[in-house]
Amino acid sequence: VISEFDLIRRCFQRPTRHTVLGIGDDGALIAPSAGQQLVVSTDLLVEGTHFFPDADPESLGWKTLAVNLSDLAAMGALPRWATLATALPAAAPDWLDAFARGFFACADHFGIDLIGGDTTRGPHGAMSFCVTIFGEVAPGAALRRNGARVDDSIWVSGMPGRAAQGLAHLRGEIKLAEPQRSDCLVALHRPQPRVELGLALRGLATSAIDVSDGLLADLGHILEQSHVSANVSIPGLPPPGLARDALLNGGDDYELVFTTPAERDAEVAALGVKLQLPLTRIGKISPPPSGSRAGSLRLCDDSGSPIASIRRGYDHFDPHGTTPSSTT
Amino acid sequence: VISEFDLIRRCFQRPTRHTVLGIGDDGALIAPSAGQQLVVSTDLLVEGTHFFPDADPESLGWKTLAVNLSDLAAMGALPRWATLATALPAAAPDWLDAFARGFFACADHFGIDLIGGDTTRGPHGAMSFCVTIFGEVAPGAALRRNGARVDDSIWVSGMPGRAAQGLAHLRGEIKLAEPQRSDCLVALHRPQPRVELGLALRGLATSAIDVSDGLLADLGHILEQSHVSANVSIPGLPPPGLARDALLNGGDDYELVFTTPAERDAEVAALGVKLQLPLTRIGKISPPPSGSRAGSLRLCDDSGSPIASIRRGYDHFDPHGTTPSSTT
Repeated sequence: VISEFDLIRRCFQRPTRHTVLGIGDDGALIAPSAGQQLVVSTDLLVEGTHFFPDADPESLGWKTLAVNLSDLAAMGALPRWATLATALPAAAPDWLDAFARGFFACADHFGIDLIGGDTTRGPHGAMSFCVTIFGEVAPGAALRRNGARVDDSIWVSGMPGRAAQGLAHLRGEIKLAEPQRSDCLVALHRPQPRVELGLALRGLATSAIDVSDGLLADLGHILEQSHVSANVSIPGLPPPGLARDALLNGGDDYELVFTTPAERDAEVAALGVKLQLPLTRIGKISPPPSGSRAGSLRLCDDSGSPIASIRRGYDHFDPHGTTPSSTT
Repeated sequence: VISEFDLIRRCFQRPTRHTVLGIGDDGALIAPSAGQQLVVSTDLLVEGTHFFPDADPESLGWKTLAVNLSDLAAMGALPRWATLATALPAAAPDWLDAFARGFFACADHFGIDLIGGDTTRGPHGAMSFCVTIFGEVAPGAALRRNGARVDDSIWVSGMPGRAAQGLAHLRGEIKLAEPQRSDCLVALHRPQPRVELGLALRGLATSAIDVSDGLLADLGHILEQSHVSANVSIPGLPPPGLARDALLNGGDDYELVFTTPAERDAEVAALGVKLQLPLTRIGKISPPPSGSRAGSLRLCDDSGSPIASIRRGYDHFDPHGTTPSSTT
């Protein structure tokens, strides 16, 4: 029987690329690049809340890091380091090997050094993984939620809603056919953090956020923090039903929503071509209603008729709504 | 009913003192001091494993941060920032208020800015708290586990074993009388990370580690990583029994074990007086047995007679032993 200590060492201690001292002492040592600021974000994934008990460990390893990378992407930061703390009911070498394989596939792809960890026994049914991630950005260059200005264009990357539809399929609420089925399950299990897009948006976007809680909800955070409103009209918006609801309110996709000055629309379009990533203009920032602290979101269909059913997304950050998680 | 989102904002969003951007965006922004390296450590505390379900929330808040500060102390780092991720079964305002009170009492005392967090619903019986902590240290000045040299003196701060005795008392295994009872329960519930000592040991100690797993086990990590052995003789070692076992093998005290060049013994003694913290010389580093990768630990009583019963501590990092947790 392999000891838990050796297991962790085997699974998680890898050579680092840009780290002074990695795993093995009371703390890791890193030397931030001269003149750069650090972006820091942390996420805790808990069994039952964020993933099913029978989740594929390799995909889970990928996703555990990817959701954190998405926060760096939304800030326009260059990924550099991460720590991983885990609570596991028992040492399961094969399971943990697969988890580590997925985690490091993501780490290697995005240039992350794993510099620290804590492994502890936790109760059955409550496996959990906490990642803290560090990226670098020049002073003043970070993409914030509070910079959207009136008349800015509003954009979204990729196609939000696929993860929510994949989840609905797994829950038996809908039945997806191929190729949509695979497409939605990949979006759910192996989200692609938009790191390259975030880096390219520095100096171009006036605000950005990643779509973790839902397109309208997360755009709502930008409106709230920028003290503006928005007119949103999504091209080809599906008719009422699950697909529309998933697109507007589904979380877990980790696309980016961002705003840019309208005169730079062509640059954004060209960027989408360069990155081979669909970037869709979904609306325009408008002034807040006078006297109101936060702005409102007005959603229209292709013909310009207002769509009323946007309460769910908007409620998400409303003081009287329910919010399952809050992330820095 | 207060929403979980507002609850977190109320409990955990405080003004920061040395942070560019705190809680509220996709990530926090910090500006490390020019030329300094960052020490990073992470710890996950899980209900049932690290604390009782009925733990006093204010003490738990203190301890959650304190055990991480202890890792910074063992590296000789100046405490600067921390993130906190929590999984809670339900929003319990009074409980979380008390937890935050203890957490910020510790943060304020040691100059920590809380810069980020993630709050998620977790299953009942599996409340958990993950802290990642950041300190600063000049390049080359960090205290490591691998620097102990032959003839160095071995020191321990405070009086390890009190936390283990406090735990035994709570479990009904022993019955402590006052004032020892309070003393041991304070050591268990409100450990004092030895931050000031760690800072003072820069340029003085050749190695250091904090006593989280037990005095002999943690000293063993220094011996292993420094490729040396040790002769240990603890003045006034209690007779065989729980007190001795707690002193030698009890964890959770968060004192520091460190080594210094023998010619600087007087400086260490003077430091203890200055900090009003007992610093006890407990032995001397010796060469490793030839051919062996890691050194051995030879424990003697006051009269110089070897004590055989040290297997438990030593096994702790032995490849075939059991190790409940491994911390970077």
